[in-house]
Amino acid sequence: MLVIFKSLEFKEGKLFLIDQRKLPGEKEYFLCHTYQDVEYAIARMVVRGAPAIGATAAYGLYLAAKEFQKHAKRDFFLKMREASYILLKSRPTAVNLAWALKRMERIMEEEQDKDLPEIVKRLKEEADKIAREDIEINRSIGRYGRELVAEGAVILTHCNTGGLATVGYGTALGVIRAAYERDKKIHVYANETRPWLQGARLTAFELREEGIPVTVIIDSVAATLIRDGKIDLIIVGADRIASNGDTANKIGTFMLSELAKNYHVPFYVAAPVSTIDFELDNGSEIEIEERAPEEVTHIQGIQIVPDGVDVYNPAFDLTPHENIDGIITEKGIIRAPYKEGLASLKQI
Amino acid sequence: MLVIFKSLEFKEGKLFLIDQRKLPGEKEYFLCHTYQDVEYAIARMVVRGAPAIGATAAYGLYLAAKEFQKHAKRDFFLKMREASYILLKSRPTAVNLAWALKRMERIMEEEQDKDLPEIVKRLKEEADKIAREDIEINRSIGRYGRELVAEGAVILTHCNTGGLATVGYGTALGVIRAAYERDKKIHVYANETRPWLQGARLTAFELREEGIPVTVIIDSVAATLIRDGKIDLIIVGADRIASNGDTANKIGTFMLSELAKNYHVPFYVAAPVSTIDFELDNGSEIEIEERAPEEVTHIQGIQIVPDGVDVYNPAFDLTPHENIDGIITEKGIIRAPYKEGLASLKQI
Repeated sequence: MLVIFKSLEFKEGKLFLIDQRKLPGEKEYFLCHTYQDVEYAIARMVVRGAPAIGATAAYGLYLAAKEFQKHAKRDFFLKMREASYILLKSRPTAVNLAWALKRMERIMEEEQDKDLPEIVKRLKEEADKIAREDIEINRSIGRYGRELVAEGAVILTHCNTGGLATVGYGTALGVIRAAYERDKKIHVYANETRPWLQGARLTAFELREEGIPVTVIIDSVAATLIRDGKIDLIIVGADRIASNGDTANKIGTFMLSELAKNYHVPFYVAAPVSTIDFELDNGSEIEIEERAPEEVTHIQGIQIVPDGVDVYNPAFDLTPHENIDGIITEKGIIRAPYKEGLASLKQI
Repeated sequence: MLVIFKSLEFKEGKLFLIDQRKLPGEKEYFLCHTYQDVEYAIARMVVRGAPAIGATAAYGLYLAAKEFQKHAKRDFFLKMREASYILLKSRPTAVNLAWALKRMERIMEEEQDKDLPEIVKRLKEEADKIAREDIEINRSIGRYGRELVAEGAVILTHCNTGGLATVGYGTALGVIRAAYERDKKIHVYANETRPWLQGARLTAFELREEGIPVTVIIDSVAATLIRDGKIDLIIVGADRIASNGDTANKIGTFMLSELAKNYHVPFYVAAPVSTIDFELDNGSEIEIEERAPEEVTHIQGIQIVPDGVDVYNPAFDLTPHENIDGIITEKGIIRAPYKEGLASLKQI
């Protein structure tokens, strides 16, 4: 059942991505033959979701390695460095991208004395490992997170954090899945998540396919539901978490967290440890990606904003750690004080 | 210049409405020959905006009178009562609809001993008066409201409250226009206003036509702008105001008011006295219209939510009076305590 929602699969020497720009209307695969294809797919959001783009970038670097192994070793490493930089720059906010590329670079460093075909083989193994581990990590997030979900809970979520946002299973949606798998009766409100409509298009699609009851709302309806006591729990994903717990996530998350604070609704972030950027003291250092106005002015090709009108389109916003009741990771749920809690997760 | 934004005009025995479902892409007129056409136009949002639908309904009742004057007087009044009820039920939340119909009914009562052609003539005069007065009222709202707008102010607004939402000029957008006419340098952020996109489609269009600087944002970006001190003033319209100041307005307004409260940004409502429902003690008594799921699942005919997924689509939300710094009316700006302040506006 979960196979439907694998956002990516490497086979026949190519990376197959479900084209998330076209879901749920069309189920099409976007094939990446080169690392440039991968860079395009990430930048244009053929694939999106912090964990998914991490694994995708890892395969991108493997595709680069396959291409460059015909070169002399010195040239190979130079070209690989360039490819890694290009992949890194494909999207700025999600740190999982940098994290996955760093893992691949560490392999190159460790194996640098080996022959190129051996290095290429090791890179493939590492990309596979990143992808495989992601699903295991999500299942672990789900196991910890489901303890927060009471029988009969009504859960609000934002954006898409499911199988399509990861290699499979999901983070915030993984928690919802894990609760549902335990036969907990739950109901999910999915914010449509303008401008890209990940909630309306992708989350609704995933939940419907699994038979988990879901109601789609426009993002601003959430405020009234929260005030009126209709929401028991809010769970969202993350694109980058600073070491003090400040969290960059899909635009709209901060608004939810403020309403949750005002009306005392538990607000949780679900993300793998790879989403924590230990190099940043706080969220103000996170680069917030601003995307093309066309995401706002056009919906599936239909123009809704008149020509000549200015648009401001930040793709993410920042939720301060004070608004977060806990961060659900594969190693457990971290609560305030976050600095200490998150530091304890740091991998050497 | 303002003529462009007259939402309605009665001429050649017909009511001409700009079809707001098609703006800004197409500028088409929807012609109402009968009161049933008017009922359809209000229910389907060919015309929208509380003051605009009030004046539209008044002309609807006049069209009914023209049709029914061939009947005996007793039948005329019976049929007129039915027509008025049908028009009243076309949309439930905006009280201006009931207010305008009541004005028309009062004319029928006052003139009941006259001949039918004379009554019909008086109804036309009253509908014209409602329409004419609306523009004057809006200009007065603008004059009071612009005193709140500092030189260089950045103003956030929601939905469309301009010439298209009224007979002309606008309420919240009338304040913005009035400030701009005084050569105040201002910048407007317009929330796109899901699901119907009144901000993206209509407000952006009106402001661009007048050369008032405007930036369109998706609704949830507002939260970050408010927190980051980028907004000096928030002005919205209203569909119904209870006698304690609680305000029903376009879905998304409540969310803005909560953020404004958290970050101490002045939050004002601009509306004519006809929007105040003195029969209601507080906002909990206001009926919030729930509209068809298709407004959320489809955008201009394009499907964005998969089939078989539940949608909850309330068209309005309720902002408690504590979140409102003032209500700008044509008779001045009312501030807390609202019960006393609003009561002083009551027309006998």
